[in-house]
Amino acid sequence: MGVTLLDTRVSPFGIALEEKGVKYEYSEQDLRNKGPMLLEMNPVYKKVPVLIHNGKPICESLIAVQYIDEVWNNKSPLLPSDPYQRAQSRFWADFVDNKVYFPGRKTWTKKGQELEAGKNGLIESLKLLDGELGDKPYFEGDKLGYVDAALIPFYSWFHGYETFGNFGIEAECLKFIAWCKRCMQNESVSKSLPDPQEVYGFLVELRKKLGLE
Amino acid sequence: MGVTLLDTRVSPFGIALEEKGVKYEYSEQDLRNKGPMLLEMNPVYKKVPVLIHNGKPICESLIAVQYIDEVWNNKSPLLPSDPYQRAQSRFWADFVDNKVYFPGRKTWTKKGQELEAGKNGLIESLKLLDGELGDKPYFEGDKLGYVDAALIPFYSWFHGYETFGNFGIEAECLKFIAWCKRCMQNESVSKSLPDPQEVYGFLVELRKKLGLE
Repeated sequence: MGVTLLDTRVSPFGIALEEKGVKYEYSEQDLRNKGPMLLEMNPVYKKVPVLIHNGKPICESLIAVQYIDEVWNNKSPLLPSDPYQRAQSRFWADFVDNKVYFPGRKTWTKKGQELEAGKNGLIESLKLLDGELGDKPYFEGDKLGYVDAALIPFYSWFHGYETFGNFGIEAECLKFIAWCKRCMQNESVSKSLPDPQEVYGFLVELRKKLGLE
Repeated sequence: MGVTLLDTRVSPFGIALEEKGVKYEYSEQDLRNKGPMLLEMNPVYKKVPVLIHNGKPICESLIAVQYIDEVWNNKSPLLPSDPYQRAQSRFWADFVDNKVYFPGRKTWTKKGQELEAGKNGLIESLKLLDGELGDKPYFEGDKLGYVDAALIPFYSWFHGYETFGNFGIEAECLKFIAWCKRCMQNESVSKSLPDPQEVYGFLVELRKKLGLE
């Protein structure tokens, strides 16, 4: 039955599969017109990404990455083996899911005070992540891992965040930007991430549809 | 150094530790007046529960339960061993964290449309969980597991939800309520869960402080 990934180009999730060298079929989803496969495979949330392995769906991106790490466990471990380090990785990946995603979303959907809260929240989160990264090349150490795979997809969105929010991220988080560039040297990442201009174009269209332009 | 749990009586988290037979020191936290230990151990979210093991903190309840399951792995496994079943358990525990907690909170903090959305959302979530439980005694099968430990603490809150929201949960979710009563037959649960009247009293006080009474 193999592996299929239901996803969109702008929310790349294939990094973990690429790291493991898993061959998979990619199926681009139109979230404005959800297809029967997505609705059947993720009836609870009806969203991407959905990993389908041997016909069975695994929903929610961080859960799917952990699944990939457990099933294809003979190559490129993503989570550390030590339980305490694993807990720390899970903590920071969840932090990304909440405290980078939601403030980031405000930068292109909100105005006034809410926009300011989004910008400040995003910078605050990136600074905390900066501190957590410290002098390590990657969050889990010397190689790309679970937290890196959770966080790096946002790099493609920064141009959109900065343009709509009218603010700068780079100058505030130098160590973080150096880490982004380091991640991009991994083929699993450079191959998966969309061009920032593509994400920007997607956001322009989405804002029009949402009546925000 | 041992194990310490920073928590509150009304948000019980000790079930996993009790299941594993881990001896721990319990430290009740006053969330209206957060102590230095909580602020030091959970500087990012400043909330309970925090598990402290050998002086190092593990924050976020589901992450801590997974940590407990990995460290004390010789007794009462909470997550299944099969990767697909583990992913399903993680999915439903996350669902509880989001889709039971947030609508539940609305039943005692909101009015009008938002209150209705909370009540409907909660019932809808419990019905989905009902379906996932099916005819199994517990979510992971024959014994109390990860999803059970994530969900059962809400049972103590239902009386408060029902009273402030002026609605009934029991009649709508019979299978679910039977599961609650089954869980309560486990000492790890009955010992950890507060009396519903205690939670109700806590909510009355909290509503006063929040200016909701």
